[in-house]
Amino acid sequence: MTDKQKYAKLKKILDDVSVYGRSIGKLYFDQSCCAPTDGLEQAGEDIAILGKQIFKLTHSKTYIQLVKELHESNEGLTDIQKKLIEHLYDDYSKTKNLSAKFAFEKDCASAKAYGDWLAAKKGNDYSLFKDTLATVIDFTRKSIELRDEKYPTLYTACIDDTEKGGSEPQLDAFFDSLKARIVPLMKKIVAEGKPIREDFLSRKCPIPVQESFSRYLLNVEGLRESALVLMTTEHPFTTNFGRQDVRVTTHYYEDMFLSNIFSTLHEGGHALFMQNEPDEFYPEHVDNHMSNAMHETISRFYENVIGRSEAFIRFVYPKLVEVAGDILSDVSERELYEGVNIARPSLIRTEADELTYCLHIAIRYELEKAFINGDITVDEIPALWNAKYKEYLGVDVPSDTEGCLQDVHWTMDFGYFPSYALGNAYGVQILRTMEKDFDVFAAVEKGELNKVRDWLKERVFSIASVSTPDEWIRAITGEGLNVKYYLDYLEEKYTKLYELK
Amino acid sequence: MTDKQKYAKLKKILDDVSVYGRSIGKLYFDQSCCAPTDGLEQAGEDIAILGKQIFKLTHSKTYIQLVKELHESNEGLTDIQKKLIEHLYDDYSKTKNLSAKFAFEKDCASAKAYGDWLAAKKGNDYSLFKDTLATVIDFTRKSIELRDEKYPTLYTACIDDTEKGGSEPQLDAFFDSLKARIVPLMKKIVAEGKPIREDFLSRKCPIPVQESFSRYLLNVEGLRESALVLMTTEHPFTTNFGRQDVRVTTHYYEDMFLSNIFSTLHEGGHALFMQNEPDEFYPEHVDNHMSNAMHETISRFYENVIGRSEAFIRFVYPKLVEVAGDILSDVSERELYEGVNIARPSLIRTEADELTYCLHIAIRYELEKAFINGDITVDEIPALWNAKYKEYLGVDVPSDTEGCLQDVHWTMDFGYFPSYALGNAYGVQILRTMEKDFDVFAAVEKGELNKVRDWLKERVFSIASVSTPDEWIRAITGEGLNVKYYLDYLEEKYTKLYELK
Repeated sequence: MTDKQKYAKLKKILDDVSVYGRSIGKLYFDQSCCAPTDGLEQAGEDIAILGKQIFKLTHSKTYIQLVKELHESNEGLTDIQKKLIEHLYDDYSKTKNLSAKFAFEKDCASAKAYGDWLAAKKGNDYSLFKDTLATVIDFTRKSIELRDEKYPTLYTACIDDTEKGGSEPQLDAFFDSLKARIVPLMKKIVAEGKPIREDFLSRKCPIPVQESFSRYLLNVEGLRESALVLMTTEHPFTTNFGRQDVRVTTHYYEDMFLSNIFSTLHEGGHALFMQNEPDEFYPEHVDNHMSNAMHETISRFYENVIGRSEAFIRFVYPKLVEVAGDILSDVSERELYEGVNIARPSLIRTEADELTYCLHIAIRYELEKAFINGDITVDEIPALWNAKYKEYLGVDVPSDTEGCLQDVHWTMDFGYFPSYALGNAYGVQILRTMEKDFDVFAAVEKGELNKVRDWLKERVFSIASVSTPDEWIRAITGEGLNVKYYLDYLEEKYTKLYELK
Repeated sequence: MTDKQKYAKLKKILDDVSVYGRSIGKLYFDQSCCAPTDGLEQAGEDIAILGKQIFKLTHSKTYIQLVKELHESNEGLTDIQKKLIEHLYDDYSKTKNLSAKFAFEKDCASAKAYGDWLAAKKGNDYSLFKDTLATVIDFTRKSIELRDEKYPTLYTACIDDTEKGGSEPQLDAFFDSLKARIVPLMKKIVAEGKPIREDFLSRKCPIPVQESFSRYLLNVEGLRESALVLMTTEHPFTTNFGRQDVRVTTHYYEDMFLSNIFSTLHEGGHALFMQNEPDEFYPEHVDNHMSNAMHETISRFYENVIGRSEAFIRFVYPKLVEVAGDILSDVSERELYEGVNIARPSLIRTEADELTYCLHIAIRYELEKAFINGDITVDEIPALWNAKYKEYLGVDVPSDTEGCLQDVHWTMDFGYFPSYALGNAYGVQILRTMEKDFDVFAAVEKGELNKVRDWLKERVFSIASVSTPDEWIRAITGEGLNVKYYLDYLEEKYTKLYELK
């Protein structure tokens, strides 16, 4: 068999894997957006059983042999195909020592953890979640220990899984840089920032109005409507099943209409990525291989760099007045801009402002690093969480629901949180490059967001799934991650906004 | 191996089948309630590929041998288990000559037909649906011809599949009886019925109001909320994944609020059946084996016999006034009762009144019987449809969207339509028996619908999945299907309502 024939044979297996992948993805989506409470347990079991099929397919002798051989020799394969083989070989190396039983039980634990987390969050009772969290952590630790590759720490493996090539010292330094400039900036705002009007932010906005405005925003972002769905859920996320079926979810709060607006812009950013990878990636199963930070780069870019800019508010203000007239009848455009940018130490990550957001992430980073590395137990999480919120943000956490139970991530993933902070930094670095090609905010002010989308499509989406994070940011901007762009941006924006000296 | 051991082995396979069954069911649900247009094609392919797995499992040598052997000897099996074996052997006999390829292609054809039907209905263009309809019909005909059993006509097999033991002559006679009394009754109403007020029926009712009223109605029907979901779709249906996860869908029209109310009561009836089979049926996979007519008995019973009764309107009127005040501010309880019972020849089956509904079914029955038996081609359907609507109902069909394209059923099923008419007749026959035990409408007037549910649970739901339609109706009412109860009920109700002489 030639390498090309081997590849064709492998692709057939991957086609089947993708059927199960999409089906499982839809079952997850269903769990979050459709299923009644009583149905969650059975759904979790079904997901795990279908997961077994993927495990079987990607651990069969034929499959492993094909991946190994194509890793050795790949004559006649396209560059994209070669990249795919790299991905697959990497995945294989990381999971080859795991039994089907182990993988199945790991999935079951996550499914159970999701249900327990929901109940714990609803009832503000960490004890309902603690034990399954410990189980999920344990499965993660074991799955790393079973690998051939030995890492400096167990958490390093989590980093490598989400941001290939990253390390603990690098992330420690990254978060130190952020804390070093954000914490004093925040203190300065608290001490001497001018007051910003905020009375209108909690005015009631009917959910149908919010819903139709969300659809408008997704349209402005440049998403293809026939390949898009918008639904509601507890914890907003975006997912896709190929480029033809992208699902954005959001959560409406009657008395916090801005929450939904920025959540939708954020998720819409993810959706843009999903709809706009190169055509040839999808049939070759190379799509969706970007790192989490790359994805968060785009979502945070649309949420903050674009969404919370003066230019975007100038564009969107008259539309918002039109649909939600009463709420903004006595609010000027400038007041709206200032209102959406209030910076203030707070409790909830997803509601946090652009300035303090990375501090929320730093806390999660430090905690998950500690419990994955075995330095702390799950029993210590709530107290440590609360202590760090006091230390970095100066706030008292009144309940675990508003504390360590607020995020869904730890029901399944560790190493994801840093992606948000990295994404923030990448986003501004990319903005500075984009600005060399056209006046970004002039376009935004005219609502011409398709220009932004098209630039991202050409320069950013086009190479993400076939690059490591470092290769990617260098190819786009000509240098590696440089957090200075982001910190300068924050300092300039907030100094001006709060009229700091 | 003992028979009990064989059964245990078979049950393990059935557990796996049910995982695929639920997953496919959820993908269908997703197609109808969530997926964007561009995603439908891929979803259809995925459904068909998962369907292949069910086919594989239920056509493996082991499976077939177990079913055959347990059909021969079933020592130590419970009655329920014996019934399940009967079902499985029957299914096996009907499909044993079909290849995996054939079954797969049949599923693909149905998936394609669904998309084509949607487009054809939307664009009022029968030509977009015609060819895939012909393909689906062809697959159905072939799948019957491939069976060992030879039927008097091909359509007889469709009847036998949906209503075991039924036949064409029996259904011909049934529909003749209906036509013989309903057509003259309708004519009498048109000629001499008193006028009924209807101006308020098309008043605009906001969709959120309709939605919350739907939830209220489902609650009144006695459904368990934690195992229930209500969503919107083009063509309402109800489905379930075990008793813990029942999904009701509806469609809201701002200017036809009654449409949603009776659709919800109807689908809620299906949901009650799904939530209330005996506990022991579910783990044994014996649930959900009732015939379609049994299911429609319950849904039509709640929609019409209960929902359109004076007693129910008396109960629900003040609640409806409360939520939708403006619409009913000048409408009396009596006017509402009369308004929901207007009988009038019309175009759309799902919007048809209780009296003419069965005529819509008679038309579909006659058409599908004809094209399955090869007496007409798909080209003839629109003209014949329109001619029959003119003949039986006296109406001109202005477009195929309002004509032969209105229903989804023919994208996958033939033989289902008669179930609605049979259900109407069974429902009234069962009512007469229920009334011997308690004053049904006195309970309904007090909103005590749990009494009705509990009676149905004990007498009707408890035996449905383990009985043929004939066994079932005899066990409940002491006699076979007797259409006279239904026709008497109609005549009495409409004579009084329209003050006929």
